[in-house]
Amino acid sequence: MIEYQEALQVLRSFSSEPETEIIDLENAVGRTLSTHLMANETSPPFDNSAMDGYLVRSSATASATSSNPVLLPVKKCLGAGDTSNEYFDCNSALEIMTGAPIPASDHDCVIKIEDVAEIIRNSSDGTTHILLTKPFFSGANIRRAGEDFQSGQVLFQTGQTIELSHLLVLATLGISQLSVVRMPKVGLISTGKELVSHSVAKLGPGQIRNSTGLYLKKSLEALHHPVIDCGNVADDPDLFLNHVKNCLNSGAQLVLSTGAVSMGRYDFVKSSLERMGAQIHFHKCAIRPGKPILFASTMWEDRRVFFFGMPGNPISTAVGFRFFVRPFLDHIVGRSGSNATKTDSQYTKAKLANDFKKPEGYRCFFKAHGRTLDSGEQVVEPLTGQASFMVSPLLKANSWVVFNESDNVAKAGSIVEVCKL
Amino acid sequence: MIEYQEALQVLRSFSSEPETEIIDLENAVGRTLSTHLMANETSPPFDNSAMDGYLVRSSATASATSSNPVLLPVKKCLGAGDTSNEYFDCNSALEIMTGAPIPASDHDCVIKIEDVAEIIRNSSDGTTHILLTKPFFSGANIRRAGEDFQSGQVLFQTGQTIELSHLLVLATLGISQLSVVRMPKVGLISTGKELVSHSVAKLGPGQIRNSTGLYLKKSLEALHHPVIDCGNVADDPDLFLNHVKNCLNSGAQLVLSTGAVSMGRYDFVKSSLERMGAQIHFHKCAIRPGKPILFASTMWEDRRVFFFGMPGNPISTAVGFRFFVRPFLDHIVGRSGSNATKTDSQYTKAKLANDFKKPEGYRCFFKAHGRTLDSGEQVVEPLTGQASFMVSPLLKANSWVVFNESDNVAKAGSIVEVCKL
Repeated sequence: MIEYQEALQVLRSFSSEPETEIIDLENAVGRTLSTHLMANETSPPFDNSAMDGYLVRSSATASATSSNPVLLPVKKCLGAGDTSNEYFDCNSALEIMTGAPIPASDHDCVIKIEDVAEIIRNSSDGTTHILLTKPFFSGANIRRAGEDFQSGQVLFQTGQTIELSHLLVLATLGISQLSVVRMPKVGLISTGKELVSHSVAKLGPGQIRNSTGLYLKKSLEALHHPVIDCGNVADDPDLFLNHVKNCLNSGAQLVLSTGAVSMGRYDFVKSSLERMGAQIHFHKCAIRPGKPILFASTMWEDRRVFFFGMPGNPISTAVGFRFFVRPFLDHIVGRSGSNATKTDSQYTKAKLANDFKKPEGYRCFFKAHGRTLDSGEQVVEPLTGQASFMVSPLLKANSWVVFNESDNVAKAGSIVEVCKL
Repeated sequence: MIEYQEALQVLRSFSSEPETEIIDLENAVGRTLSTHLMANETSPPFDNSAMDGYLVRSSATASATSSNPVLLPVKKCLGAGDTSNEYFDCNSALEIMTGAPIPASDHDCVIKIEDVAEIIRNSSDGTTHILLTKPFFSGANIRRAGEDFQSGQVLFQTGQTIELSHLLVLATLGISQLSVVRMPKVGLISTGKELVSHSVAKLGPGQIRNSTGLYLKKSLEALHHPVIDCGNVADDPDLFLNHVKNCLNSGAQLVLSTGAVSMGRYDFVKSSLERMGAQIHFHKCAIRPGKPILFASTMWEDRRVFFFGMPGNPISTAVGFRFFVRPFLDHIVGRSGSNATKTDSQYTKAKLANDFKKPEGYRCFFKAHGRTLDSGEQVVEPLTGQASFMVSPLLKANSWVVFNESDNVAKAGSIVEVCKL
């Protein structure tokens, strides 16, 4: 039995050259960049007005006071999308709308409508003048080309996960296609003759529903992994191995199984994997729940393929997936996370709300509810019902609280690690 | 111009009877329950073993000591999924695997393999006996029927959003279909003749890319709203109104537009909506960025339909969507959020990292980066570049920080509200 940190080291000792693919920006959210991403343009692409107002030359306003106002004729109106190559003389003003390009004359200052002392429209000749009673400064209310992005600037590093908010950046810069990691295909196999589909209307004697199959499938799909769902093999080691091989022949890089991985009489996962020549890297880790977890690999058609055998109790499976499978997948695809959840620093700290008993020598991943106090302090409360078969705490859990191996009680007020459920 | 809290009150003054639909559990993640959800079964469905071990009658072990051990013959092996109606006499043991049902005899205690003093296998007659040197207690290592869920128990209230972790609960209980809110259809219209598609390779003079169209579409789809994407109408009020009407005829309950909602010469959204008979509930709110936001409604074929006119700068649009459109949609569908993000309490508190200037009298929603210190304290840092056209801060933002109307500077160390980007 190894400790959790050793298990992580084993997982991180493997590497893989992830496949890549080019996708449209429309499909980019949640995907992981396979290269760093640069801006190929400056943004804004041209100087433009930050306001609806009047464009003037600041020097023409320098002498303006209430007693000695400056009167400027308004020559034209420029809207967003309008362009002009006209030259406007220094004592002219232009009406200008937000986003309209600043023309290539020496006008250098946009005056907000509310800062104009008076707008004088002459209905007989159709002219407009603005009356200014104070000076305005060069550059006021003008957005400069490149103020937001410079061409050549690195936007994101390899491994970054694209979020919804990043669409605003990428669309602005015209990055309509991206090179991303093709997420590895994962096979799923449930074991246990007691299991029936979650959609069965009525359970027979001794039967329970497969609660983890759909959870794992949807969790993997949420991370954009294609899933080969083999369903349940009951207690049939040969069928199990056939499914494993079918998954690998279909291109799976990883196969996950649930159940049959402990020391019971029908626990055939380890011996079956050995039978096909796989190397068991670890079996049993000093954690609760989910201690019997197994990790193995073998070569298959010139590539290394991987197996996790997770215990069948639903919370053991959830812990195995969250704290072993996900870090492993993140590692082999080089996924460094998003702005919101850096996978390398996915734990945050919180104050423990109450004393909580734990088995000494085991790292514990417990169902918990976290919240932020009005002081800004994070507090976490482990929920009652930590047995690995009990899923009812998930009705109100939003976190995992993580207790280290030392001690047999975690003390209220101590700082512990938490992460999102 | 109204204040933000007043604007929220206006939004919440409308109600709607959301449509519902029945969906399969496979498609439930992210959906919002339209009724409360009850368990129709108990779980576990039967008493079962929590361990691989031996099932005995505790009374038969009462006298066991090292010097006076108890020897029990092992009659049978029960695996998960096995059932037995046999009667086993009080001085017998059964080998039993995790999850196997406890038979209907009076055996009441499972002994872990490692707590058995000796397992004696007689290879000549094939019998097995276990030697016990201490007493064991009734109920040990037995999971009782109904210990996790009771039939009739309310699992989730109306309005709850289903999360990945809830699949473990719902699959366990055989809830394979759910009644959820059919999320309202939303129409999207961009305005501005300066806008071109984000996928255009090269910008013409005066042009910029539409950065918000895809963001809004994907944000709405992430919330499971069907989207009618009308693209861009340049500065054409008639085309705008045609698109609005087409959206409504296609069943949209809400139409969102970007741009043309300020006081500029080409800002036609308000007058166009008035032309079709819509009532403007507010136009301009004391916020930054995004002040010109407009909210309107009208009757259309016997139902009330709604409009948000959001300013066209990308961050103004993002703020309008996050702090007006989302609360409004949550309100009309009765969405109360998930375990992780209660929409009613979506703000949490954090300590402000540095002094930050803000315009007095305006509620400010600023791009920010939040993190949790090793002490468990939440800290938030507003980023540089808060102008509404600047999207580059989104490269590292993960939060919005919210400053109230009072004061013109938010002080380092003060407690402020934050919410997820």
